[in-house]
Amino acid sequence: MAFDPDIYELFQGIKQGNKVFLARAITLIESTLPIHQSQSLELLKLIWPHQGQAMKIAVTGAPGVGKSSMIEVLGAEFIRSGHKVAVLAIDPTSQQSYGSILGDKTRMNQLAQMPAAFVRPSPNSLELGGVSPSTRESIVLCEAAGYDIVLLETVGVGQSEIQVSDMADIVLLLLAPGSGDHLQGIKKGIMESADLIAITKADGELENAANRLQSELKHSAMIRHQSSDSSHVQILLTSSHSGKNITELMQIIQSLFDNRKHNGVLEQVRRNNLEKWFDQALRISLLRKAFANEQLNEAISDIKSSRDFTNAVIPLVIQDLLKQWDFRK
Amino acid sequence: MAFDPDIYELFQGIKQGNKVFLARAITLIESTLPIHQSQSLELLKLIWPHQGQAMKIAVTGAPGVGKSSMIEVLGAEFIRSGHKVAVLAIDPTSQQSYGSILGDKTRMNQLAQMPAAFVRPSPNSLELGGVSPSTRESIVLCEAAGYDIVLLETVGVGQSEIQVSDMADIVLLLLAPGSGDHLQGIKKGIMESADLIAITKADGELENAANRLQSELKHSAMIRHQSSDSSHVQILLTSSHSGKNITELMQIIQSLFDNRKHNGVLEQVRRNNLEKWFDQALRISLLRKAFANEQLNEAISDIKSSRDFTNAVIPLVIQDLLKQWDFRK
Repeated sequence: MAFDPDIYELFQGIKQGNKVFLARAITLIESTLPIHQSQSLELLKLIWPHQGQAMKIAVTGAPGVGKSSMIEVLGAEFIRSGHKVAVLAIDPTSQQSYGSILGDKTRMNQLAQMPAAFVRPSPNSLELGGVSPSTRESIVLCEAAGYDIVLLETVGVGQSEIQVSDMADIVLLLLAPGSGDHLQGIKKGIMESADLIAITKADGELENAANRLQSELKHSAMIRHQSSDSSHVQILLTSSHSGKNITELMQIIQSLFDNRKHNGVLEQVRRNNLEKWFDQALRISLLRKAFANEQLNEAISDIKSSRDFTNAVIPLVIQDLLKQWDFRK
Repeated sequence: MAFDPDIYELFQGIKQGNKVFLARAITLIESTLPIHQSQSLELLKLIWPHQGQAMKIAVTGAPGVGKSSMIEVLGAEFIRSGHKVAVLAIDPTSQQSYGSILGDKTRMNQLAQMPAAFVRPSPNSLELGGVSPSTRESIVLCEAAGYDIVLLETVGVGQSEIQVSDMADIVLLLLAPGSGDHLQGIKKGIMESADLIAITKADGELENAANRLQSELKHSAMIRHQSSDSSHVQILLTSSHSGKNITELMQIIQSLFDNRKHNGVLEQVRRNNLEKWFDQALRISLLRKAFANEQLNEAISDIKSSRDFTNAVIPLVIQDLLKQWDFRK
């Protein structure tokens, strides 16, 4: 992978909103090669003062609920009202083939073709969980490139949902009507971290089921908003297909964001997110430091290639291995 | 949390198959208190030679597909043919409340009441991903207690699915008919790691849809078995409700296991799983070592409490912080 432009050119291109340069910069930042990592730091140093104040919206929900479709119509709606929209898709872990069944190229076609949109699927780094450790840096790059709305999409339910919430100003949870037991798949924690719920597919033959789900949710004890502003969680009936309530959804998101800006909640959310970023990045760096040690690597491969390994009491072997090791100045 | 029996009594109780002692031992092993951790190591040292050769079956699939119901009927089937069955439910991450919406107590009631069954929901340790770092140790304890079938259930799709596959001899993937776009939620990697597919709910009004799904899957390029035995992946139509093909499913699992035992694949799978266990436990231990350093902790809290933190270029701050630090003997 050769980067033709140097880091300063890359920086200039990003500031000018050049999508090709932005895409290249994200690729650079995703790379784990040491040379790319030091170039990334150089770039981030240049970029940092230019990062914008984009509104970061996490779009979460179970598989099949319609996240891509929602992002497509919601993104287009934001663009129509004058915004620039970046979409970062957090696509965890197809461990063996590093790809999703539906190719990313077939997704969000319409949005991706708009001049004011930037759609980027995320890589599947498995380093420390389903979320790429570079997603936060990618957000910063998009902000510097002038995107004032960043939509974060997750695939799947679980760990990655929660991690993506840790990067967002607003968490939009999508629920689909019809599948009787779908609530089983939505963990309480994800419900609790939702700032806003959109019921998808609320048209055609699913309209009644959508209405039922809405009133069920309104009476549910599950939605107890844990965040520091006590405003109740709004539940909106939407359809990406017909466009039903998409404008309203955008407006509610915008006013939620504005409120949070004024009452100080936004600052607090961002502060928390920053600490989580720090903690996560620190863990990754600590492990990289450890695994950069040749002596440790040799000891590890000695253990793995020893005849006793298959009968080894793993926790004890590790205790013995690390007995004399320490992390220190 | 007081452990009345000492470690040797705990060990004896487990060997005798005492469920109360087994449950206590798992609680001990899940604890992150240093005193409990050293007691856990003592217990594991005693237990290790007594660990059995249980068949470990991961049951994966999207939320709502019927994993709990399948485990209930499949577990009962194994018990009827003379086995002892342990169920470890891997329940990732309700971050704020540490619980699932459906209380675990209401699940797998019938199975849990059988004398030859042990049903244990897993804790939600978020230490390094959705899977509790102690699940593998819990499996060993169950084996030592005489359970020769261990069923591993995951909630959700994503990271935890793949991690649970890393602990199993056989991966059973459940797919439900009817939801047109459900394949979107099943990542290619999960499809590829499946040794066997059961289509659930293949009765009543979903029977036709189940048949269609079966023939679709048979012609799908997605099922390319990557594991070292080239046997094709069987796709079975089942119903937990009517009991359809549950006996057959058990028999297929058993013969798959026996085949793998004879052709050496089992040994290879277990070897790979052991290396993954080692790698994961090593990462956790390395981080624990680092965070046990007071000087590092002080430096971290200095950074977080400094006025500049909110404008900090996180990757640079971390690079500076760790510049002089190293992991060494």
